Amino acid sequence: MLSGYQGKAVIVTGGLGFIGSNLAIQLVEAGADVTVIDSMVSGCGANWCNLAQVRNDVRVIVSDIGSTDQFARVLKGVDVVFNLAGEISHSRSMEDPERDLALNTLSQLRFLLACREHCPGTRVVYAGTRQVYGQQESLPVDERHPIRPLDFNGVHKHAAAQYHQLLTRRGDLDCIILRLSNVYGPRMAIHLAHQGFLGVYFRMALEGKPILVYGEGEQLRDPVHVEDVLDAFLRCGTAREPRHRIFNIGGSQALSLKEIARTIASSSRGSQALHVPFPEELRSIDIGSYYSDTLRAQRELGWMPGVLFEDGVRDALAYFSEHSKHYLEPATHLSVPEMETLRHVKTLRASSVS
Amino acid sequence: MLSGYQGKAVIVTGGLGFIGSNLAIQLVEAGADVTVIDSMVSGCGANWCNLAQVRNDVRVIVSDIGSTDQFARVLKGVDVVFNLAGEISHSRSMEDPERDLALNTLSQLRFLLACREHCPGTRVVYAGTRQVYGQQESLPVDERHPIRPLDFNGVHKHAAAQYHQLLTRRGDLDCIILRLSNVYGPRMAIHLAHQGFLGVYFRMALEGKPILVYGEGEQLRDPVHVEDVLDAFLRCGTAREPRHRIFNIGGSQALSLKEIARTIASSSRGSQALHVPFPEELRSIDIGSYYSDTLRAQRELGWMPGVLFEDGVRDALAYFSEHSKHYLEPATHLSVPEMETLRHVKTLRASSVS
Repeated sequence: MLSGYQGKAVIVTGGLGFIGSNLAIQLVEAGADVTVIDSMVSGCGANWCNLAQVRNDVRVIVSDIGSTDQFARVLKGVDVVFNLAGEISHSRSMEDPERDLALNTLSQLRFLLACREHCPGTRVVYAGTRQVYGQQESLPVDERHPIRPLDFNGVHKHAAAQYHQLLTRRGDLDCIILRLSNVYGPRMAIHLAHQGFLGVYFRMALEGKPILVYGEGEQLRDPVHVEDVLDAFLRCGTAREPRHRIFNIGGSQALSLKEIARTIASSSRGSQALHVPFPEELRSIDIGSYYSDTLRAQRELGWMPGVLFEDGVRDALAYFSEHSKHYLEPATHLSVPEMETLRHVKTLRASSVS
Repeated sequence: MLSGYQGKAVIVTGGLGFIGSNLAIQLVEAGADVTVIDSMVSGCGANWCNLAQVRNDVRVIVSDIGSTDQFARVLKGVDVVFNLAGEISHSRSMEDPERDLALNTLSQLRFLLACREHCPGTRVVYAGTRQVYGQQESLPVDERHPIRPLDFNGVHKHAAAQYHQLLTRRGDLDCIILRLSNVYGPRMAIHLAHQGFLGVYFRMALEGKPILVYGEGEQLRDPVHVEDVLDAFLRCGTAREPRHRIFNIGGSQALSLKEIARTIASSSRGSQALHVPFPEELRSIDIGSYYSDTLRAQRELGWMPGVLFEDGVRDALAYFSEHSKHYLEPATHLSVPEMETLRHVKTLRASSVS
């Protein structure tokens, strides 16, 4: 697959974040000309250290994707847009729905309209979420499941996905939407309490603290390692005229939260799973059990999740242990000496681009 | 049904518009204490003359529904909210999607959060649209049909509908969503070219001009008279614990655009249907044929469309003929003498309410 990116101009929105940075790194390795657009909005997971290893080889534009004047020139001539910018926190969307609407819907609208103007017909691969399904009717959940989000984040991410679909139906852009399950792996924003239980579990494990499982922890999830997710994005970036435009992407194993916590705890030193009462404020947005039916992606993209959870956990913990200072308490505003070590990252702001 | 509204405090958002004003009038007649909230945003169909006959009996607050400070006091103690505010124009949403997002999604978000705060648990009946279905998979279309809007208006109205559903699932509000087909009747904003083909057909008929049918006009629609739609709103306002929360509301007859044009032309003096090529800019948002499966509303609300199209057209044309000066070219800003005739409408602005 990766051979398809040699010399290609690609954009990764949200490319300083967890999945986006991993994707940018793979694209650099595949010989692509990579531009990252990232707003570095507080709480969304951007971390300069995520791109440290490709600091010489990516162009980073610090801009909200809705501030399209700041990067219009880069859109011209782009081959593929990987569109991962956004806020993924369900709980934060309940606390501040307007912030979530602005980040996930309004900015996406502006961004896509700019794509339509400057790079019409371009393939755009959007990072959607399984959260749009809400509580499932039956398991596993396939792409035809009703859309009944339980939180504002699900509503707003779904509206953004519908923009992608609408512009594709009109022939303005050529979009594919992934509905991602719980993704984990190196470069996760494990310092952020709002970004999902997996990051919190990893942080507790790294700190040698108990991993708190809410209630019995019997709900199922299909955690998917970021390497598998990257494979899906990369396949979608080059897939020719796919029959469908929406694909579930999840792991191969359906595991209970209890099992997930125990696996992470047992791979760490001194952590253990501990059951505590389910917090009231989270009960109403809990989706119950979920795991993906990914048959469509297998059939149409030739994609299969390959990383076993136990292996993936070991890999992630090894990464975070090695780079713990950058992930347990990452610098939100880099000081001068730290900035110095990252000076080769070609950071562009408005004036130097457009 | 109407007996359920005696002495009830009700709010009608968008109550200066077509359906909203008809609803406000019926609610006044049913003995309700009616407050209308309407932004009078240009192009959305608000018309002071719509409420002329109840000018002594309604409270009108001129405010965007998102400017909730302006009417918070009125929300307290309200029994039912009929939520009809919004922009319905599909084509205008394509020209200015951000305007549509602000009017149909952001303002609804703010409004519903204010309802949750000031009148938790209240029944809210939302005017959704059949446009969310996009091009149908099969006819008639029931409520389980996939949501695949073909224009930004459909995306934004659907996001607002999902807010209603989400807040209902959480127990914050008690909402019902109607997916309205093409509604017609007295008080339509027939002077606005963007508000759908039926209004345009009526205007042409009144002006004795040819009714332009795009292409062959073979696409089916199920126009529904506003009296039938009011019946659905009023039933939903008092329905106890309905099994479903989403109901299609459409007419009893599936008619082609050609037939619709001919019926309207033949009820008028000197107008006739004339076929012209389909405008390119509308082709991509044309949903093809549509008519509603309204069985769910029949079973759960006891609702049935009762007005035959031919009768409804005669009724509407009679109304518009009688009041033509207020509908063919309604005053957007009322001059003093005109305002005088409406002086009894209790118009309140921010300062006098909160």
